[in-house]
Amino acid sequence: MMAAMKISPLAPAGGFPNLAPIKGVRFATAEAGVKYSGRSDVMLAELAPNTVIAGVFTKSSTRSAAVLDCQAKIGGDSSGGAAILVNSGNANAFTGTYGKESVEILTTDVAKTLGIDTSRVFTASTGVIGETLAHDKIVSKLQALKSNLSEAAIESAANAIMTTDTFPKGYGTQVEIDGGIINIVGFAKGSGMIEPDMATMLSYIFTDANISQSALQAMVTKASDVTFNCITVDTDTSTSDTLLLAATGQCGMAEIADIDSTNGQLFYTALHNVLLELAHQVVRDGEGATKFIEVRITGAESVSDARKVAKSIANSPLVKTAIAGEDPNWGRVVMAVGKSGANANRDTLSIRFGEILVAENGWVSPDYTEEDGAAYMKNSDLVISVDLGIGQSNAVVWTCDLTHGYIEINADYRS
Amino acid sequence: MMAAMKISPLAPAGGFPNLAPIKGVRFATAEAGVKYSGRSDVMLAELAPNTVIAGVFTKSSTRSAAVLDCQAKIGGDSSGGAAILVNSGNANAFTGTYGKESVEILTTDVAKTLGIDTSRVFTASTGVIGETLAHDKIVSKLQALKSNLSEAAIESAANAIMTTDTFPKGYGTQVEIDGGIINIVGFAKGSGMIEPDMATMLSYIFTDANISQSALQAMVTKASDVTFNCITVDTDTSTSDTLLLAATGQCGMAEIADIDSTNGQLFYTALHNVLLELAHQVVRDGEGATKFIEVRITGAESVSDARKVAKSIANSPLVKTAIAGEDPNWGRVVMAVGKSGANANRDTLSIRFGEILVAENGWVSPDYTEEDGAAYMKNSDLVISVDLGIGQSNAVVWTCDLTHGYIEINADYRS
Repeated sequence: MMAAMKISPLAPAGGFPNLAPIKGVRFATAEAGVKYSGRSDVMLAELAPNTVIAGVFTKSSTRSAAVLDCQAKIGGDSSGGAAILVNSGNANAFTGTYGKESVEILTTDVAKTLGIDTSRVFTASTGVIGETLAHDKIVSKLQALKSNLSEAAIESAANAIMTTDTFPKGYGTQVEIDGGIINIVGFAKGSGMIEPDMATMLSYIFTDANISQSALQAMVTKASDVTFNCITVDTDTSTSDTLLLAATGQCGMAEIADIDSTNGQLFYTALHNVLLELAHQVVRDGEGATKFIEVRITGAESVSDARKVAKSIANSPLVKTAIAGEDPNWGRVVMAVGKSGANANRDTLSIRFGEILVAENGWVSPDYTEEDGAAYMKNSDLVISVDLGIGQSNAVVWTCDLTHGYIEINADYRS
Repeated sequence: MMAAMKISPLAPAGGFPNLAPIKGVRFATAEAGVKYSGRSDVMLAELAPNTVIAGVFTKSSTRSAAVLDCQAKIGGDSSGGAAILVNSGNANAFTGTYGKESVEILTTDVAKTLGIDTSRVFTASTGVIGETLAHDKIVSKLQALKSNLSEAAIESAANAIMTTDTFPKGYGTQVEIDGGIINIVGFAKGSGMIEPDMATMLSYIFTDANISQSALQAMVTKASDVTFNCITVDTDTSTSDTLLLAATGQCGMAEIADIDSTNGQLFYTALHNVLLELAHQVVRDGEGATKFIEVRITGAESVSDARKVAKSIANSPLVKTAIAGEDPNWGRVVMAVGKSGANANRDTLSIRFGEILVAENGWVSPDYTEEDGAAYMKNSDLVISVDLGIGQSNAVVWTCDLTHGYIEINADYRS
């Protein structure tokens, strides 16, 4: 696990921006020693009564007991308080009846400790799959966690849920609506096993917005589809992917009940920004990543086709290794377009690296030089644009390169 | 390109087995210097009159001019002679009108040189995508190639088409039908950009069988679907994948006109064996490979689902890096089953490493020990079996591990 301690070359400078406290949300962390020692590995978030919670989850057919439990609880009665408990170091996935029992024990004991209903306790576990979770170690920390709850502890919470992450991921923003201020903050973990199918790894978003559960659910589903669902590190999808969005309603404003209302749109835009920033941070911390890559597809026949092409490029080991080697190997981009399964026409597509026109009309651009391409590839943030030239639909996907670091981290993750 | 000279740890001992000459097929190779120097990079195969030719090709939407040309020629009049010309070092793909002209020049000049019709000249090019092919260098070697044609030169031909391959790939077999002997031999190239969609990289199979073109096409389509289409190195699909099967009819036996006849079945079985062996050799030479992995899926609801699960496991970077690290990380197999999109039930699936039962009933097997798993992972040939426990359908896919070698080869392939 020493790999987790490396400094990512793509870590954002300055750490967390804007992680303001949210009224009605308190955090605490503890060192339970689930797997790691000498670091916090459990975080508890306590949510005030009337907090509504929305979520999106992995579609994996082997998803964990905690995911199944959370999915069943979304949309429940929000009048009482609620809580989120997360541990790192063990995913409690594919652990049979034992895994289900761990979830029951944890949710029951958190409910008792905080005096809330078990149906309002949401848990998640992240780490190695297939090993039983030492839930007793976590239970023994619950009283201490309760005692330490504070609105200010959000950064500690973001740290506690890391596994192979090299830096914690957090972001916050504010939006002014009807003269008042709504705060939205969130954090996430994730570095490998990243091609979220429905949500991502783990991400928790908190807001003091006053909003109906149905509007909140519609917004998080829509926003995650164009943020977390548009990132990929390695094509692999976690059994534990969970995104929860909790709105305490304590901003003191009228309820937002409709995503399409003016206030709904304002809030959605801010929420989208938080999810997008967190998703980008996950990619920047992709295992072994040295480059952050935006893949922009335009001119596709459908959004589905645009996304297929974008994912095909973003997931191509040959494209990703070329970028790791700072090789402007646009032929591999052509290959990835070709294999995507989307409609494409060799002779109408064009490829750009940043602003540099590389290829068009089924051939290399007459103005393109290998020197220009190679110079561009030295940047740590890259944009690869492909216009398919056959339609009006677009998509954007973010990914990172594939390096020796990825192999190092994953060839002996459990050792 | 020095990577191409490395010795693969999985190279078959003893080189080519059974590469017997085929009556009616002559080979020659030359050093044209298309890209490489000091090695042969062009191979010409001359096929006697009445040779029928079948083929399967990449479905890439950015496939090369040579592939499009070959596809158009399959099924044509076979009364005259035919030829196959292949160069390595340049794929002549995504080279616009220039690429098409190269194919026209090469096919026309080969036809003139051998006194055959242009419609019976099949070409292929393999190597870097997006750079124009120096076809003049090849044309200047055609007379010498003609002079050197011999039935015995098949091994040289297999060598000439290599790119990042670390060893040439060839295999031959015989089948006794009606008291006579039919020979089948073939060779292939391929090491990276390997997840064939319709055929593979490049593969050429020759037989003296007397068989109708339609039966030959049916057989090669069927056989490639369960051999070359069931291998994957890195999920990437070439723009040049081409498999041609030429039958000279010179075995002196009655024509096989039906794949379902007794003789058709005998021939098909032998043909399938040749394709399977060549496909396995391609995987064993997968870029950076240190392990050959067979993924067996049983108990799926459909063959399509079984193949989805097999490909999901075989293509998972986390499964492949774990195997590279000799880590029996079966949790990643669970993850890959879960993300495959196929129907699966966490609680009915079982996982085996070789004969070792690792997991069943949604949990680790009570008899499994990490020591047993770790010891098994030391083998160079591995079998991962997953029984989904929900149906009767099966699939097998072959792959290799993902190592530092893959990154080394591909982060600077063009340098």
